[in-house]
Amino acid sequence: MNTLKEIRIFAPATIANLACGFDVLGLALDSVGDEMVIRKCDSKGIFISKIIGQELPLETEKNVAGVAALALYKKLNLDFGFEIEIYKNIKPGSGIGSSAASSAGAVWGINELLDKPFSVLELTQFAMEGERLASGNAHADNVAPALFGGITLVRSYAPLDVIKLPCPNELYTTVIHPQIELKTADSRKILKSQIAIKDGVTHWGNVGAFVSGLYTDNYELIGKSLIDVIAEPQRADLIPFYHELKRAVLKSGALGVGISGSGPSIFALSKGKEIAKNTAKTMQKVYEKLDIDFDIHISKVNQQGINIIN
Amino acid sequence: MNTLKEIRIFAPATIANLACGFDVLGLALDSVGDEMVIRKCDSKGIFISKIIGQELPLETEKNVAGVAALALYKKLNLDFGFEIEIYKNIKPGSGIGSSAASSAGAVWGINELLDKPFSVLELTQFAMEGERLASGNAHADNVAPALFGGITLVRSYAPLDVIKLPCPNELYTTVIHPQIELKTADSRKILKSQIAIKDGVTHWGNVGAFVSGLYTDNYELIGKSLIDVIAEPQRADLIPFYHELKRAVLKSGALGVGISGSGPSIFALSKGKEIAKNTAKTMQKVYEKLDIDFDIHISKVNQQGINIIN
Repeated sequence: MNTLKEIRIFAPATIANLACGFDVLGLALDSVGDEMVIRKCDSKGIFISKIIGQELPLETEKNVAGVAALALYKKLNLDFGFEIEIYKNIKPGSGIGSSAASSAGAVWGINELLDKPFSVLELTQFAMEGERLASGNAHADNVAPALFGGITLVRSYAPLDVIKLPCPNELYTTVIHPQIELKTADSRKILKSQIAIKDGVTHWGNVGAFVSGLYTDNYELIGKSLIDVIAEPQRADLIPFYHELKRAVLKSGALGVGISGSGPSIFALSKGKEIAKNTAKTMQKVYEKLDIDFDIHISKVNQQGINIIN
Repeated sequence: MNTLKEIRIFAPATIANLACGFDVLGLALDSVGDEMVIRKCDSKGIFISKIIGQELPLETEKNVAGVAALALYKKLNLDFGFEIEIYKNIKPGSGIGSSAASSAGAVWGINELLDKPFSVLELTQFAMEGERLASGNAHADNVAPALFGGITLVRSYAPLDVIKLPCPNELYTTVIHPQIELKTADSRKILKSQIAIKDGVTHWGNVGAFVSGLYTDNYELIGKSLIDVIAEPQRADLIPFYHELKRAVLKSGALGVGISGSGPSIFALSKGKEIAKNTAKTMQKVYEKLDIDFDIHISKVNQQGINIIN
């Protein structure tokens, strides 16, 4: 048994639906994320003892971190429990995995304090219960990169199979979060349940190419394969000035641009920090003339996923 | 200018539509293929001077090799021409790239005699004209592996982009060709033009995983990712005892099974020659009780593609 009674962790924001990889490809950020404190306590059960930074429910069963932690906790027969404090930096509804960070952080932290009885894949499964509460859909494409780190591919849900892909060292992300309200559930609703087979072929050709690009450090190929002919055409209209921003960002040297998760955040991938910074400036220029608040984050890909901080 | 006046080449059979990789993934065989002689001649133009092994048209514009060769020839302004002899071993309509071998072989051989004015990607584009004649559709998923060798991914058609993927050294194919008639055009017709988005997600998740498996020599992952929920369910009924054969072959240790091209050939991938041989025996057992002629080929993946023989 781990002698630590309490740990403080960083739970990264994540980009899901990476262009061609709708529902399967996700990526963890390095410089944006929540902090959480996970603490053993004498009372049995899971308790959300504090949430700073956002108005979110403290009742365990109504909180995504609580629900995810309970899914894990119920598998064990412990005579003690856990308290969870959440320090939110990721805004809910931003499309960069706010609920996933909390869900994944909770189960990762508890597993750590218990000396890792569960595999990362099992933790993913528990964390997905938080996602089910958040969006009605137990998807894994945010919790997987949060837990595995780097860039992940969800190959299959039945059984759950997650592959951690390699990530070229100079791959940077720039993410703009226009502060408009856009609920995951609504954004999913506008997607048609049927697609043209030719669009499917475009996606699986490009997912294969993207994965090849990751293994060969081929930034050009990574960029060319960041194509989305399925979700983007339907969701872009929900995001002000999406097409203008995309055009400008590609012109400024980014490898590719897409909608993060189900939006409204927009991500760009770039080779190197300088281009990622330029991309941020370009994004700012497009958005500062609008009457919409926004945040911009520049971040390297987070290779290790959730981790302990002091 | 190449001083050779004539070369004899091997043009491999190929498997396209590799399970999850419908229309994008293809693979070249080592032990099955046509032979062709390409010879410079004084008369301008492309001439099919001999075809042995099959009844196929000798008129250049009606022959896939002729049409592909013409596509290349028209780009140049030569004061001589080429004669092509074709020794067919691949049966037309088998689903293992009979027309692709002829089309690709013709352009590759001519390019070789001209000291390679064209890239392999350009040759692919010319060879696709042969495919257009054969099936009404200028697809690249057979001609690409024939020309590049190994396992190829057609990322995009506009512009044409082909990626040669790595191929684990012990990857073997076993292919059974039940000698029933099944035309590519007919087999394409039964495919619906719309698919469920969830089936698309299954395909691109598995294409990503398949590519990852190739880069990491992960045979288990390669096997798990050989899933086809789009073409196979619709085409399997056109091939006698497809499901029985698939079940038996997977039981005998093969990594995965699928329909080669648009059928009727069925391919299996295996780790190592022994399992590939077992797979062949299993295929034989299933088919020998039927009143259908069949061929079975065991082959390593052909890494180099079309090549010169003596």
